[in-house]
Amino acid sequence: MFAGELVEPHLWNQFMDYCFGEQMPFVHGWYVAAWSDEVIADKPLARKICGESVVLYRTLDGTAAALEDRCCHRAAPLHLGRVVKEGLQCGYHGLVFNCAGTCVLIPGQERIPSTAKVKSFPVVEKNQVVWIWHGPAEAADESLIIDYPWHDDPQNWPHKRSMYPVQADYMLLIDNVMDLTHIGYLHAATIGGNPEQHVGAKMTTTPTPRGVKFVRWLLNSNPPPTYVKAMGFTKNVDRWQEFEFIAPGNIIQFVGGQEVGKGAYEEDRRDGGFRVRRFHGFTPETETSCFYFWSSANGYKPSDAQATEQLFQEIGATLYEDKVMVEAQQKKLTERGEGGLVGIRSDATRLAMRRKVAEMLTSQKS
Amino acid sequence: MFAGELVEPHLWNQFMDYCFGEQMPFVHGWYVAAWSDEVIADKPLARKICGESVVLYRTLDGTAAALEDRCCHRAAPLHLGRVVKEGLQCGYHGLVFNCAGTCVLIPGQERIPSTAKVKSFPVVEKNQVVWIWHGPAEAADESLIIDYPWHDDPQNWPHKRSMYPVQADYMLLIDNVMDLTHIGYLHAATIGGNPEQHVGAKMTTTPTPRGVKFVRWLLNSNPPPTYVKAMGFTKNVDRWQEFEFIAPGNIIQFVGGQEVGKGAYEEDRRDGGFRVRRFHGFTPETETSCFYFWSSANGYKPSDAQATEQLFQEIGATLYEDKVMVEAQQKKLTERGEGGLVGIRSDATRLAMRRKVAEMLTSQKS
Amino acid sequence: MFAGELVEPHLWNQFMDYCFGEQMPFVHGWYVAAWSDEVIADKPLARKICGESVVLYRTLDGTAAALEDRCCHRAAPLHLGRVVKEGLQCGYHGLVFNCAGTCVLIPGQERIPSTAKVKSFPVVEKNQVVWIWHGPAEAADESLIIDYPWHDDPQNWPHKRSMYPVQADYMLLIDNVMDLTHIGYLHAATIGGNPEQHVGAKMTTTPTPRGVKFVRWLLNSNPPPTYVKAMGFTKNVDRWQEFEFIAPGNIIQFVGGQEVGKGAYEEDRRDGGFRVRRFHGFTPETETSCFYFWSSANGYKPSDAQATEQLFQEIGATLYEDKVMVEAQQKKLTERGEGGLVGIRSDATRLAMRRKVAEMLTSQKS
Repeated sequence: MFAGELVEPHLWNQFMDYCFGEQMPFVHGWYVAAWSDEVIADKPLARKICGESVVLYRTLDGTAAALEDRCCHRAAPLHLGRVVKEGLQCGYHGLVFNCAGTCVLIPGQERIPSTAKVKSFPVVEKNQVVWIWHGPAEAADESLIIDYPWHDDPQNWPHKRSMYPVQADYMLLIDNVMDLTHIGYLHAATIGGNPEQHVGAKMTTTPTPRGVKFVRWLLNSNPPPTYVKAMGFTKNVDRWQEFEFIAPGNIIQFVGGQEVGKGAYEEDRRDGGFRVRRFHGFTPETETSCFYFWSSANGYKPSDAQATEQLFQEIGATLYEDKVMVEAQQKKLTERGEGGLVGIRSDATRLAMRRKVAEMLTSQKS
Repeated sequence: MFAGELVEPHLWNQFMDYCFGEQMPFVHGWYVAAWSDEVIADKPLARKICGESVVLYRTLDGTAAALEDRCCHRAAPLHLGRVVKEGLQCGYHGLVFNCAGTCVLIPGQERIPSTAKVKSFPVVEKNQVVWIWHGPAEAADESLIIDYPWHDDPQNWPHKRSMYPVQADYMLLIDNVMDLTHIGYLHAATIGGNPEQHVGAKMTTTPTPRGVKFVRWLLNSNPPPTYVKAMGFTKNVDRWQEFEFIAPGNIIQFVGGQEVGKGAYEEDRRDGGFRVRRFHGFTPETETSCFYFWSSANGYKPSDAQATEQLFQEIGATLYEDKVMVEAQQKKLTERGEGGLVGIRSDATRLAMRRKVAEMLTSQKS
Repeated sequence: MFAGELVEPHLWNQFMDYCFGEQMPFVHGWYVAAWSDEVIADKPLARKICGESVVLYRTLDGTAAALEDRCCHRAAPLHLGRVVKEGLQCGYHGLVFNCAGTCVLIPGQERIPSTAKVKSFPVVEKNQVVWIWHGPAEAADESLIIDYPWHDDPQNWPHKRSMYPVQADYMLLIDNVMDLTHIGYLHAATIGGNPEQHVGAKMTTTPTPRGVKFVRWLLNSNPPPTYVKAMGFTKNVDRWQEFEFIAPGNIIQFVGGQEVGKGAYEEDRRDGGFRVRRFHGFTPETETSCFYFWSSANGYKPSDAQATEQLFQEIGATLYEDKVMVEAQQKKLTERGEGGLVGIRSDATRLAMRRKVAEMLTSQKS
């Protein structure tokens, strides 16, 4: 059994255990640590990322930084401290650390031992996101961070964003997005529409250097409740769904619908239709819990703030349905494992994604 | 040490570990899965029974059924699905299972692999109870289900029913009922009466094919608060208590009291006295938690709905006292085990019950 | 590595594991079990002390007593019982135990087997405290109990007392008091004052037979908010802090401040200044949780009940800050252990205390 050829591809956890044993199998790369506006000067933020307890803070000059959330003196969590001129000060006995994790001040003594230090993490702020590097620090290449310019374009793509803590392996959330046949069942009340149309969509899947992309067209399809609320559609629509998974933890999505007959599919005339861009950032907290960072951008009525808000609320409700389901799924997997599970046809894209992740894990191991 | 001769009979758990090791020692048989009116068409019901996660549901034609609560595709719990014409449909990707657990529909593909199935459980509905079989399916003999016709006789025995989840081994609840000397201490405020009278009751214990039965008479006894509320007794009463334990998890009870001198004991003239029938169904959830299904039937003022309700409230309060005590007892047993415990005379009937259960467990093992 | 010479003295837990393995390392001695007024006739009190579940109660003649909180019949907790003439009666089946833990009554039988008994604990009531002995009963020497007469002197030292349950090793709370450099950082809003003044205080540390004592003077120091509220200081003050740790779990404290120039330091003229006595009783519940019993006595305005109350509220707020910090510290230690921690100069007194405790543990082991 090897990564490129998962003989029984649903047996993911058994495969991972086989390959990695006790070690937490998280792909090296840039993960969303926080939204930019979560990291403020007044209050350091504690978050566990890929199994490591991190404190995120902003220095007095405005730079975002991340340290191990544990003072090297008596293990007090640094997020209970405060930002001072020289760095982050522990709230217990006053030691101060700079962004590199080096202790620069110990109250009551002049000599600072070289062992007085905490781990620091590479951090980059880009597109309203504070990105953190998981992996060997020397491999932290900024050019690997995805571009998401729509977060910085409030004129044409006004957006809103949120984060859901989810008590499930982040891979279950990625699975969720990579098999959209669930939409007709799980999201019947929101973005669902007709289940058979989802199952029977035209679909093209393409491998990419760090992931997999798929495009689906649901031609002449019932507009689901969310679409009708947004655009007042009265006829059937041609719907498109473009998704790109980029390892380790992002999916970039462009979806929408145009009235049948306006050439959305045939001539790529998608302007004027319902158009939404969504950012998904999946960040492992532990092996069975994660943070789901998401945003929705309104590309159909960009000057209508109420439309942006309504879209955000609708999508939030949909993602909450996903959260409930994957958390229930995780409980079952924790309880019973994967024994007896069977693959079906609609797993194909999801499995392509899993294979890519398995390849990356295998390569970073050796 | 063998089942029929428990050398140190209070060391139940050590004995069970000795005989069964890691295996959960639940007697094969019919357990109460739910009250009939808990299993409705609109919403499948999740319940863990004898350590197995089960979804209980009712098909569109009204038949109660029970499946493993885990879809064989991606482990989503089936109780989040819904009942459709063909069976129970998973709420995630739409697979449908019939009452036998066979997958009969996979959206998007025609061929259904034979491995696509979930475990099903024998279910019988009788006397307002949905009974479930724990054990090898081929041994599920309906004739083993007890008769409890009083649940179906609202004219003469109007009843009310409830279920208490209890964080304790179900055996501790059966112990509780099988040693009624606790009534004078634990239930002083409700059905207690005089502790010495309980301890000194006339008592006959008889073994039965699948359990043990005992009859107690408390002659010329103070009527406890519950009895006085019900009947307005002003003199002492002759009280009877008939209990039959039937393995694996039922106790059938007939209790009451008649004014002294009316011949209840001497001539079996119990009509016109205080008369109550109670159903007890003890269903293990795990080794240290269970469901306590109980009903109380009013045989003394059958046309008085308020009397039926008052009886139900009084008994509910009493059983809540039992729940608090056995949960506290379980915590101690979990913390410290059974080391140092000593048996006393009033344990005799309780131990006869434990011996019967041990015999059945031993025989089902071989 | 041995107790008197902790080579890497911050590696306390590793050292303890090395010496004691699985055994809970609690020093034999008298611990605070409860405040006197917590132990009342009507309701036995359950408390886990040094890992043992204890029921504290008061006999009908007013004597405080402590038994194992588990009936020897069916493991019911005795704290659900009640006090009767003969002793403590189990609330389940009515067995009664005297203060020595001997069963003196079994309902329904005359012979009481000699095995019917529960563990009893030596208990002494003194200075408003119910003291309990942890260790071999024959070593329970009352003369080892500390004197704290200020609890019995409402005229000159009116006091109030409380107990905080803390989810941390009791040693972390003792550490907290033994390194007062934390005051300027953690208690900035209450008793803090100027951090540098705390770090730079004059300090004398003296070993004692069962602990360590230290005296600090902060001369010409800013009066912190609590002091100003109490006395209306407008000038700087000379502050003193006297602390004595007495194993296994007490710290006795005398602190205060006097206006600069009134001779508090030079001539020991402390009358008329701000004067507070505090009692600290640290009682382990488990290895990672404890009870923090504390009192504060007003020696500056003894006839002003409002001052006594205000002092109590202020100190309560301060100790709550300590509780939050040590609980956070415990979580980190539980998660990551002590790896990578470094000692600093201000640890000196704290480490002297730890060495004393290690010595006592080592000696009681052999």
